[in-house]
Amino acid sequence: MDVISPPTLTSPPKEVIEFLKKSKNLILATHINPEGDAIGSTVALGIALERLGKNTLLYDRDRVPHIYRFLPGHERFSNSDFKTLIKGFQESRGPVDAVIILDCNTLERAAIEVPPDTTILIIDHHEPSEAFKKPAKIIPWIEPSAPATGVMVYYLIKSLGVEIDFEISINLYTAIAIDTGTFRYSNTTPETLNLAAELLSKGVRPEQISEALYDSWSINRFKLLIECLNTLEIIDDIAITYVTEESFKKTGTSQEDTENFSNFPRMIRDVKVSVFLRQIDINKWKASLRSKGDIDVGEVARVFGGGGHRNAAGFIIEGRLEEIKEKIKDRLKLVAK
Amino acid sequence: MDVISPPTLTSPPKEVIEFLKKSKNLILATHINPEGDAIGSTVALGIALERLGKNTLLYDRDRVPHIYRFLPGHERFSNSDFKTLIKGFQESRGPVDAVIILDCNTLERAAIEVPPDTTILIIDHHEPSEAFKKPAKIIPWIEPSAPATGVMVYYLIKSLGVEIDFEISINLYTAIAIDTGTFRYSNTTPETLNLAAELLSKGVRPEQISEALYDSWSINRFKLLIECLNTLEIIDDIAITYVTEESFKKTGTSQEDTENFSNFPRMIRDVKVSVFLRQIDINKWKASLRSKGDIDVGEVARVFGGGGHRNAAGFIIEGRLEEIKEKIKDRLKLVAK
Repeated sequence: MDVISPPTLTSPPKEVIEFLKKSKNLILATHINPEGDAIGSTVALGIALERLGKNTLLYDRDRVPHIYRFLPGHERFSNSDFKTLIKGFQESRGPVDAVIILDCNTLERAAIEVPPDTTILIIDHHEPSEAFKKPAKIIPWIEPSAPATGVMVYYLIKSLGVEIDFEISINLYTAIAIDTGTFRYSNTTPETLNLAAELLSKGVRPEQISEALYDSWSINRFKLLIECLNTLEIIDDIAITYVTEESFKKTGTSQEDTENFSNFPRMIRDVKVSVFLRQIDINKWKASLRSKGDIDVGEVARVFGGGGHRNAAGFIIEGRLEEIKEKIKDRLKLVAK
Repeated sequence: MDVISPPTLTSPPKEVIEFLKKSKNLILATHINPEGDAIGSTVALGIALERLGKNTLLYDRDRVPHIYRFLPGHERFSNSDFKTLIKGFQESRGPVDAVIILDCNTLERAAIEVPPDTTILIIDHHEPSEAFKKPAKIIPWIEPSAPATGVMVYYLIKSLGVEIDFEISINLYTAIAIDTGTFRYSNTTPETLNLAAELLSKGVRPEQISEALYDSWSINRFKLLIECLNTLEIIDDIAITYVTEESFKKTGTSQEDTENFSNFPRMIRDVKVSVFLRQIDINKWKASLRSKGDIDVGEVARVFGGGGHRNAAGFIIEGRLEEIKEKIKDRLKLVAK
């Protein structure tokens, strides 16, 4: 795919701006299982485009998770059948000028299919994959140096001449907060903080966002975490925890409630890798690996047929719990030493 | 005490600046059980004053906790007998111009006693207490609107004309990070983020500070947390957890390892108050209360002879665990309804 290199992150490509300015009907889609950056970026851009008089349709295959439903505008997302939606949109508004995909760079990640000649505009901070093989007109703005897609959307909205008001600010702040660990991760730059300062100045309350993102667990989910922590086993610098089907049943929880569980043992100074296993079938487990510093768990995940980055990766593995733990430990020892 | 009202937080009182400029020998002290704001503010100001050619002595009754020993300059703190230290300092340097107390506003909080005519300079963001009864020359700069003493010290160092370099930046960033929950609390303002952006631009790595502050638990402390979470009991919107002497023994931990334990049940959406009890003697417990929103746990703590703020308070209570839990619950129900 032809990746346009913009001069800097702060100046979106002219082609993107010009295209949006002249278009009328736009569909905005983001990746499946959307999180804060996907939701906040898409809603913020949707609001800005409507302010410019465009017709928009926001799509996600999956529903907006509960913790993000405080965001004004989240209810703009549709998640019924995409083909039916696009048909209805075209019938009432006229031809679609482009499908914009945000916080992902393939149609597969957004779980959508589009007619052959559709223009696809990509706005994303993830490394581009090679999956874009289909004949389509693509206008990509991919900026892996951006801490969040929300940062890119901020500069895009500015370039479009739309005022960053409270509604846009709270969506962008949340997008940036979730992808930087609320300014704790290494992707937090001075520019990120200055940008966040501007968003706060529009009336965003940092404590309200933090409470929504981090302090809104269900009691059952918290009980599941306790169950999980009780399984903690530490071998050298590897921490292993797991959640069984029985624990899900006992606490009335489901797979999605384990999000972030793998991060807790990382709180321990001497733990370099945290392995979290959740049971998805009798002898089938989803492994989530988190590491500190240089230890590349992405490499380990690929050995087991999965994928990910250096410090966060995952894969699905079959077998009995004790066997699996041994296999993963053995492989990790090769990488960590 | 005469509190000088500075025009704004960003302009320290002229009296403070002029006094520091003309002084030669300065002792900097901060409160007992020092945390990041106490340590970072004191070290940063100490470095700045030495750059101006002043002689300084940094004092804390207690040692710098392990998690802050990554801070350059933390080793400047002395914690042997204060009277002996001050005597030695005077013998080698000459008369002391002032004792500066930071992040607290009474000598009691710093656990120091000074000769009658000593000038005391106060730099603090806590509400002033009434304990300053002794005849002493006091130059107070107390700014409860400041998110951290570190913010005040930043503006003071600027006013003194000292360059904010990496060493000063990392100390101030840590001071501000700890008191704002790394920019998650309500005291985080746009100015706080802009200031933090400047500190990052001097080479501070946000992920290194976060790892030091939040991901450097000992294994034993983490095991104690699991013990604690296993005692979780939720009644209406009150969560109660506790740690017994037996748990300390079992995990090889001590009282100070429970810092922050009271915050974990706050992660639960429906929990409005978290009560954490730690056993300090057979029938004696330290209660730590944390609340969300408008629930004033400071008021509850005062009923039991303790103190604190609206959302964070504590007290010592005698009795058997079950009795104590009942008493606190009953009192909380009066406040929360």
